[in-house]
Amino acid sequence: MKIAIIGLGYWGPNLVRNFITTEGVDGVVCWDLQPKKMERIKKRFPSVETVETLEEILTDPEIAGVAVATPVSTHHEIGMKVLGAGKHLLLEKPMAASSREARELVEAASKKGVVLAVDHTFIYTGAVRKIKELLESGKIGEILYFDSVRVNLGLFQHDANVVWDLATHDLSIMHHLIGMRPVGVSAVGVSHFNGHEDMAYLTVHFSDKLLAHFHVNWLSPVKVRKILIGGSRQMVVYDDMEASDKVKVYDKGVSVNGEESVYRALVQYRTGDMFAPHLDQTEALTLLAREFVDCIQNGKPPAVDGMAGLEVVQILEAADLSMKNGGEKILLSTLSEA
Amino acid sequence: MKIAIIGLGYWGPNLVRNFITTEGVDGVVCWDLQPKKMERIKKRFPSVETVETLEEILTDPEIAGVAVATPVSTHHEIGMKVLGAGKHLLLEKPMAASSREARELVEAASKKGVVLAVDHTFIYTGAVRKIKELLESGKIGEILYFDSVRVNLGLFQHDANVVWDLATHDLSIMHHLIGMRPVGVSAVGVSHFNGHEDMAYLTVHFSDKLLAHFHVNWLSPVKVRKILIGGSRQMVVYDDMEASDKVKVYDKGVSVNGEESVYRALVQYRTGDMFAPHLDQTEALTLLAREFVDCIQNGKPPAVDGMAGLEVVQILEAADLSMKNGGEKILLSTLSEA
Amino acid sequence: MKIAIIGLGYWGPNLVRNFITTEGVDGVVCWDLQPKKMERIKKRFPSVETVETLEEILTDPEIAGVAVATPVSTHHEIGMKVLGAGKHLLLEKPMAASSREARELVEAASKKGVVLAVDHTFIYTGAVRKIKELLESGKIGEILYFDSVRVNLGLFQHDANVVWDLATHDLSIMHHLIGMRPVGVSAVGVSHFNGHEDMAYLTVHFSDKLLAHFHVNWLSPVKVRKILIGGSRQMVVYDDMEASDKVKVYDKGVSVNGEESVYRALVQYRTGDMFAPHLDQTEALTLLAREFVDCIQNGKPPAVDGMAGLEVVQILEAADLSMKNGGEKILLSTLSEA
Amino acid sequence: MKIAIIGLGYWGPNLVRNFITTEGVDGVVCWDLQPKKMERIKKRFPSVETVETLEEILTDPEIAGVAVATPVSTHHEIGMKVLGAGKHLLLEKPMAASSREARELVEAASKKGVVLAVDHTFIYTGAVRKIKELLESGKIGEILYFDSVRVNLGLFQHDANVVWDLATHDLSIMHHLIGMRPVGVSAVGVSHFNGHEDMAYLTVHFSDKLLAHFHVNWLSPVKVRKILIGGSRQMVVYDDMEASDKVKVYDKGVSVNGEESVYRALVQYRTGDMFAPHLDQTEALTLLAREFVDCIQNGKPPAVDGMAGLEVVQILEAADLSMKNGGEKILLSTLSEA
Repeated sequence: MKIAIIGLGYWGPNLVRNFITTEGVDGVVCWDLQPKKMERIKKRFPSVETVETLEEILTDPEIAGVAVATPVSTHHEIGMKVLGAGKHLLLEKPMAASSREARELVEAASKKGVVLAVDHTFIYTGAVRKIKELLESGKIGEILYFDSVRVNLGLFQHDANVVWDLATHDLSIMHHLIGMRPVGVSAVGVSHFNGHEDMAYLTVHFSDKLLAHFHVNWLSPVKVRKILIGGSRQMVVYDDMEASDKVKVYDKGVSVNGEESVYRALVQYRTGDMFAPHLDQTEALTLLAREFVDCIQNGKPPAVDGMAGLEVVQILEAADLSMKNGGEKILLSTLSEA
Repeated sequence: MKIAIIGLGYWGPNLVRNFITTEGVDGVVCWDLQPKKMERIKKRFPSVETVETLEEILTDPEIAGVAVATPVSTHHEIGMKVLGAGKHLLLEKPMAASSREARELVEAASKKGVVLAVDHTFIYTGAVRKIKELLESGKIGEILYFDSVRVNLGLFQHDANVVWDLATHDLSIMHHLIGMRPVGVSAVGVSHFNGHEDMAYLTVHFSDKLLAHFHVNWLSPVKVRKILIGGSRQMVVYDDMEASDKVKVYDKGVSVNGEESVYRALVQYRTGDMFAPHLDQTEALTLLAREFVDCIQNGKPPAVDGMAGLEVVQILEAADLSMKNGGEKILLSTLSEA
Repeated sequence: MKIAIIGLGYWGPNLVRNFITTEGVDGVVCWDLQPKKMERIKKRFPSVETVETLEEILTDPEIAGVAVATPVSTHHEIGMKVLGAGKHLLLEKPMAASSREARELVEAASKKGVVLAVDHTFIYTGAVRKIKELLESGKIGEILYFDSVRVNLGLFQHDANVVWDLATHDLSIMHHLIGMRPVGVSAVGVSHFNGHEDMAYLTVHFSDKLLAHFHVNWLSPVKVRKILIGGSRQMVVYDDMEASDKVKVYDKGVSVNGEESVYRALVQYRTGDMFAPHLDQTEALTLLAREFVDCIQNGKPPAVDGMAGLEVVQILEAADLSMKNGGEKILLSTLSEA
Repeated sequence: MKIAIIGLGYWGPNLVRNFITTEGVDGVVCWDLQPKKMERIKKRFPSVETVETLEEILTDPEIAGVAVATPVSTHHEIGMKVLGAGKHLLLEKPMAASSREARELVEAASKKGVVLAVDHTFIYTGAVRKIKELLESGKIGEILYFDSVRVNLGLFQHDANVVWDLATHDLSIMHHLIGMRPVGVSAVGVSHFNGHEDMAYLTVHFSDKLLAHFHVNWLSPVKVRKILIGGSRQMVVYDDMEASDKVKVYDKGVSVNGEESVYRALVQYRTGDMFAPHLDQTEALTLLAREFVDCIQNGKPPAVDGMAGLEVVQILEAADLSMKNGGEKILLSTLSEA
């Protein structure tokens, strides 16, 4: 089986590098609108083939799967052609520019019976896999809140605001870890330079007492990538800026004794050990590439399928709508019907 | 002149300790409903006098000023009596349990022509005074955003939610540093234990492109007290958990060249030096005590007057209302008219 | 039983505060050459008695134990009088100004059959007690090295160099944790201002492959208090500047497989979990005060007895000698015979 | 002009990558004993030429300069041949396996009138260049001490102890920044696994009151790369593990007033601002490659010449000797005469 990579900008070459060495892949074929980028990739990875049109990829019977790493605005058009050609599809995050586009992609993949995977890369990191494992083991208990900060002095994107650029990462992590469907989204943001929002705060509401909150910012003098997860038994801090010990699990919490409210009953604070589990260092994209090939070969569903990609796009879309309406809470149910 | 301290719980003894050594204060008189607390304060500070009724304070002609460090719910009643007796008043933060109460106190003080000061202690720290100085010097430029995080594993308060307990500090700092009137407040919070909210996110909206945002949380495994202030020229990080170098000023920013939008024009990122100014270590409360006495003696206005206290209470009140209404933005103008 | 405290400088009032509330202590008696210091302690702790001469302490039959917190140069003279009067003795660290003085104190206490304890305070902290427990459990394995850094911008002492001032703490921790007798000491130091050494490096040699090393410095712009303990199974980092998680245990190490040298055989690096045990927060001095009283009442030996104090003084003395001789290694056996 | 790179292990490919894009270099020629490594470099950098024998490099008139990145034990033999062929030479650090070898290389280069440069890479980092600039500006004042820690869980080297592996970096930084000749070296180390020393402490003595000290360790659970430089006016902390703000300059110090010793006179502690200068991010090796070509073309001396390389090797050699002799201070003058 061969794998094709479409789009050789920032992320595409990483896909090439990983698929080249993935077991089961007999060849990697590349295409980009800019011939210079194809020359550069051939210099760096002499074994890759390049083609001059998308058509060549769509009609090549040896190409089983196609990874699309082009700008988001083109995901739908290219993706639909790939699916139309009956090929398995891996889309960069965010999956599409709107929930309508994302839904059409999901439906097309379903009709064709091919794999539709979305590259929510962080899901495959040792850190997120370990937190998932801890949550599933029951050690963390019930999730009380999910708080994320991803800020730095950032490159302004030409085609997206800071929410689509940065929050997509954290929303995909939240989606994977929490596993429940949110009910609504509210967001506020500011565009200081008359373009897209360069900073924003998102709140994701669940039916339960659970809140998820996200701070994304291209105007921060310091770089922060930190997620706090409050659990009823233990609490997790995931600090991606730490060189080691990125995930810390605190045996801390609040216990309420007695039947009355927490303010009348005896509130007890537990302050126990802290524990930083060893994390697998395998590159996330290596695991993703392996999984995509495995799904194609064995008909397995990917960890991040089209529905997961769609649900993240819905939140992004709702955040945009909320920002336009001054922070109004947008119910995801109304959005789905649109 | 003598100073009276009413309420000897957690904060009152700190007021006693500072007023005892304040120049111009000839004696400190204490009162608390619990005789045990008065005994304890006399043991620790043998020079203080204690009285058995509030009446004794109100009628003592030697007592010029009264500091009230009782629970918030009693501030209005006690404060009105103190003002009614024509004495200068220092109220613990938050100033009162509602904006209506706060406004009555402001009006009463004005009518009597006495000093009404509010103990927004952080305003008097070396860190906040230095940031104020930097802002006034123009070095920071225009404020683009104000982001605050104050979280830890906290004691649940019996009479207040986490917003009134923790956000008061950061709102008072914001009020002092930004100096503009906000137009609206939105907030979401969760009460995990059927009592008051134990975590909350507040957004304070200004008429301009400016946003202020606050994360307060009693359920965090780690203690964070951090404020980011994005300026058009420089950016400030105030990390109160640092043992030294609490305030860092980054010569970083975004410059837009050309007339078109930031996405078309040449965006330039400046990454310059960082600078951590030396901070005055004088205890904040020492400065506040000195100032209160100075205001009484020389008729000066305090740095945090009744209006400042009222404006912070308005935001707290609006946050409560917003949380009740699912995060709806509350315009402060509507509140003021209520 | 009453306890007497001699010397009310920096540390004495802490001893007073703790002995006052120690069970079994019926009264605390204080003495200092400066009457002002006695007045101040009476103001702060009205229950303490003060006396005007050392004689009054030595002859008071109610006083069972005496804690001496005077300058080191006076420990021997006062301590010998206390022991001569048949009273139990607690000496501040370092125990004495020379090993000869320390040995005489040990012998006098032994002859009189009274308790001789030395206030190596750090031994009683939650952090050091936890590390001791981990070492005794065998989890750390064999100790490979002990590395300590204690540096800051420090107050120059009038009567001691930086080794006697700062390294005493770390040497006492090392003595307690390692439990083996060192064989030699080498040290280099510099006196930049023509007085005592203001920075120094000490190496403590053991008969085994074990090295202990200490960096002490009054001229560091940053404050560091960090101990690394390399074990054959696990490694410990004790960072006293951390607000929480002061002790971290790393499941990291080097395993050598095969019979040949580490360079030929397969060296395997283990990188496992990290673990920060919860530490007891009881004030170290509270535990020490309790222990001293317990030793007096029940004839138990203290955790830090005169021999422990003597052994630390021997290392300090050897370090001074080594610094005078350009870093020459001083064998402790030669010193003991002196 | 062409540049040849000999040795394609860990470091060689970095030299290749940088020389390929250095202005003035028309081609890069590679040689390694292992054909596989040459195949790999050709795949990664298709433009490089490879040769099968050293002879081909020595006799190619187009090759002006040769960079040697082979194991240290071979530096002398290969380097002498390169110099013998009249070619300019860049040697990896440490320059040679003994001071005798290093001196022969210096003399041979001098006789042939060619450039002899040593790759003390850290000298070319933005951090070290900035510290050098601060020292030369006089802002730091006189250097009081130089303290370095470079520890981590390290790979055991087959042909070198931890001093030759790690301390070489810090000694080269010290040599460059201090600029004075040391008078002696003492060192202690331990080999826990019957091979080379895996941890060591070095002290470098200067004629003045200045001490330099180095802790290197392959058995540390945490990675530390930190240099403290105490100056009479300001103090510098260079922490290479920081993502940003690697160099911090503290306006802190000790001032002695009066004529008497620091203990009698008024010692004043200055605690002023801290300042983290912006650092140039250019890759160190890029600057080194440029400089080597510039030296060849324009007959300039390199920043790190053979004498600098020799002086660092002398300290390494003296450290080995000292470790063998139980930490005895080795005078560099005796070594030079050997």
